[in-house]
Amino acid sequence: MSNGKPKIVIVGGGFGGIKLAKLFAKENVDITLVDRHNFHLFQPLLYQVSTAVLSEDEIAYPIRSFFRSNKNVNFFMAKAKGVDQARNVLLTNHGEISYDYLILAAGTTTNFFGMKEVEEHAFGMKSLQEALHIRNHVIHEFERADKPYRTPEDRKKRMTFVVVGGGPTGVEEAGALTELIEIQKKEFHHLDFNDVQVILIEATPRVLPMMPEDLQKETVRVLEKKGVRVMLETQVVGYDGDVLKLKSGVEIPTTTVIWAAGVRAVDLMKNCGGECARDGRIWIEENLMVRGAVNQNVFAIGDCAAFMHGDMKRPLPTVAPVATQQAKTAHKNIMKLIKGDTNLEKFVYKDLGAMATIGRGEAVVGSPKMKGFLAWCAWMLVHLIRLAGAHTNFTVAIKWTWNLISGVRLGRIIDNIKLDT
Amino acid sequence: MSNGKPKIVIVGGGFGGIKLAKLFAKENVDITLVDRHNFHLFQPLLYQVSTAVLSEDEIAYPIRSFFRSNKNVNFFMAKAKGVDQARNVLLTNHGEISYDYLILAAGTTTNFFGMKEVEEHAFGMKSLQEALHIRNHVIHEFERADKPYRTPEDRKKRMTFVVVGGGPTGVEEAGALTELIEIQKKEFHHLDFNDVQVILIEATPRVLPMMPEDLQKETVRVLEKKGVRVMLETQVVGYDGDVLKLKSGVEIPTTTVIWAAGVRAVDLMKNCGGECARDGRIWIEENLMVRGAVNQNVFAIGDCAAFMHGDMKRPLPTVAPVATQQAKTAHKNIMKLIKGDTNLEKFVYKDLGAMATIGRGEAVVGSPKMKGFLAWCAWMLVHLIRLAGAHTNFTVAIKWTWNLISGVRLGRIIDNIKLDT
Repeated sequence: MSNGKPKIVIVGGGFGGIKLAKLFAKENVDITLVDRHNFHLFQPLLYQVSTAVLSEDEIAYPIRSFFRSNKNVNFFMAKAKGVDQARNVLLTNHGEISYDYLILAAGTTTNFFGMKEVEEHAFGMKSLQEALHIRNHVIHEFERADKPYRTPEDRKKRMTFVVVGGGPTGVEEAGALTELIEIQKKEFHHLDFNDVQVILIEATPRVLPMMPEDLQKETVRVLEKKGVRVMLETQVVGYDGDVLKLKSGVEIPTTTVIWAAGVRAVDLMKNCGGECARDGRIWIEENLMVRGAVNQNVFAIGDCAAFMHGDMKRPLPTVAPVATQQAKTAHKNIMKLIKGDTNLEKFVYKDLGAMATIGRGEAVVGSPKMKGFLAWCAWMLVHLIRLAGAHTNFTVAIKWTWNLISGVRLGRIIDNIKLDT
Repeated sequence: MSNGKPKIVIVGGGFGGIKLAKLFAKENVDITLVDRHNFHLFQPLLYQVSTAVLSEDEIAYPIRSFFRSNKNVNFFMAKAKGVDQARNVLLTNHGEISYDYLILAAGTTTNFFGMKEVEEHAFGMKSLQEALHIRNHVIHEFERADKPYRTPEDRKKRMTFVVVGGGPTGVEEAGALTELIEIQKKEFHHLDFNDVQVILIEATPRVLPMMPEDLQKETVRVLEKKGVRVMLETQVVGYDGDVLKLKSGVEIPTTTVIWAAGVRAVDLMKNCGGECARDGRIWIEENLMVRGAVNQNVFAIGDCAAFMHGDMKRPLPTVAPVATQQAKTAHKNIMKLIKGDTNLEKFVYKDLGAMATIGRGEAVVGSPKMKGFLAWCAWMLVHLIRLAGAHTNFTVAIKWTWNLISGVRLGRIIDNIKLDT
């Protein structure tokens, strides 16, 4: 409060954090937005980077660019480590940041459910780096499989791509992989594509849990038509980088396991002075304040927060609309507190329904119920509108159209080859 | 020759190698194209990736995509290690490849002129990885400099960007850096931009040696107008990652030295059974055959080959037109040999002149002599036409126009943060 203005600190430049900073930017306050990355990541399209459809800079937008004209928004690139609520400071790997009001919007990370071996060898699907890593690896495996000295077993193992988790990420990733393979088929003149397979593994009896049952079935049908082997009620118990082990005892030789089976809150949440749910999300009150906040000035929103009140059976899902809607309420409530009004608003979630794409020209939308090409167009429009930056809206639209028509995939580049070997 | 067709092996997927494979693809031969990367790199625009103008997949094009419809072209991703001319085999890190005719088109790498310390701490500017590395580093240095705990000296050191080498790459890089800084200025609300400087260091008395003198002077004038400090007749003697040491004794504290001061042939050339020039390029005959080729079936073209005949004072320069023109002659001569005709054609270089851009809207063209916006348009057109892929031609054109008008730079993303720190 060096200049007398209330100091708002926001942790996380995801959908919730950016929205919040934009709302506060119009107020007479100083805002510091903290993120370990210098970009906002459009996570719903991460699978398109991992399958070489989009470039990284089409889904990653520099955080500072959102606030060019907002001189009261300061970006601070650092990894948040914890909160000292008694002293009103956020602890980071670049020092302490004091706050009058703190909002945690730090998001989630991959949940490997304690399976260390899987964590070590499978690919997560939450960060830009992970997506690029998957792209490099998958494209490289094709090159490796194409070498004449491979044994048939080795070749097949490298051409088996397993996605674990039947949520939107897993479904979209599996669908996109089959399309990537179709394009590779045109360019590997000697490789036997009968060896190539994509497997989607899901522990429960259904994919896309948030969808009505008929659309779940439709999704499986479309995936299978695209060549994905869908294994429902199948549990993974281990993966050593070579062989995926299922609870049934079945073993699947594969060099690629993409883990989209669950998320948990980032580790930071344990060190914020609140109580956390089993998946690490911090419990928040109906007014979005962290439960038991010492000075009544720490809030949490979005994926990192567990919101469950009234007759709800489980906390709100970890989806963007929860974060952006909560951002509005958190902004209102903090502005009330700044003005001395302690009569805070309760958050009420308005469910906008779910959508998922299964491949180019194929999607399912929960409400209003849609499937096929029409659903895909709706999915495309909704995602295009929300992408940051006018240039990107335009080029991504062109890329998708182009990809729909001719199946071009420009991003099939391996950029992590060690140059000295 | 398992199927009786002559086996052509090409090392390198640069301008020369791709051209050559395209020419041979129409003949009744089998072609194997070897490259350690799976993409063709459009090197003239590498500086635009390093300064966050273009995405990596706009200048890196999957090699296999060139040969979708050419079933007789096989891509083999491997690092070539040497040639056993007696046995007619190319040695690679993925085994041996036998050939009937071999063409070396392996290109060059950065020449640090034996200064190990500089090599360790400066950035090269020859590979896609190096360009991405520069981008990540430069953008990261801004974030680091912005931290409140920095001393003024530390901040200034991080905001000093030095480019060594006054050839096209150095000039273009220095110009593009000043424009990147202009955009950063809009988004770092607290950083003092008086600390920020770009320095271009050149050992000789002039930049762009291939240009007429008035355009050299014009280039320096434009660079200085853009804020580049141009230091001519200045020699670098050391760099430890912190302080750049000049022969004059002057020391420049800087965390960023981009080395564009020279190239040498890749190490492979030493192991091909020919004689090499001082810069490592293999000497070739007028018919492009490697001097002293044991079985009269090994050729070399482009940057990795030293061609000097008649009244030439130095070998042909390491530029794309030499490589593509030599590709045509090498193709003709090998087809002659296949048909039993040993009366090979002599290569004659047709110099098409040089061009270099100094920044958006500013370029110099040697022949016909042009400068300013008109030259920039010519530069833009020539480069656009040569970029691989219709989609890219289109999106790059849009990006450049957009960048010219509004200075947008989407690629300012740091994607190499270690996630566990």
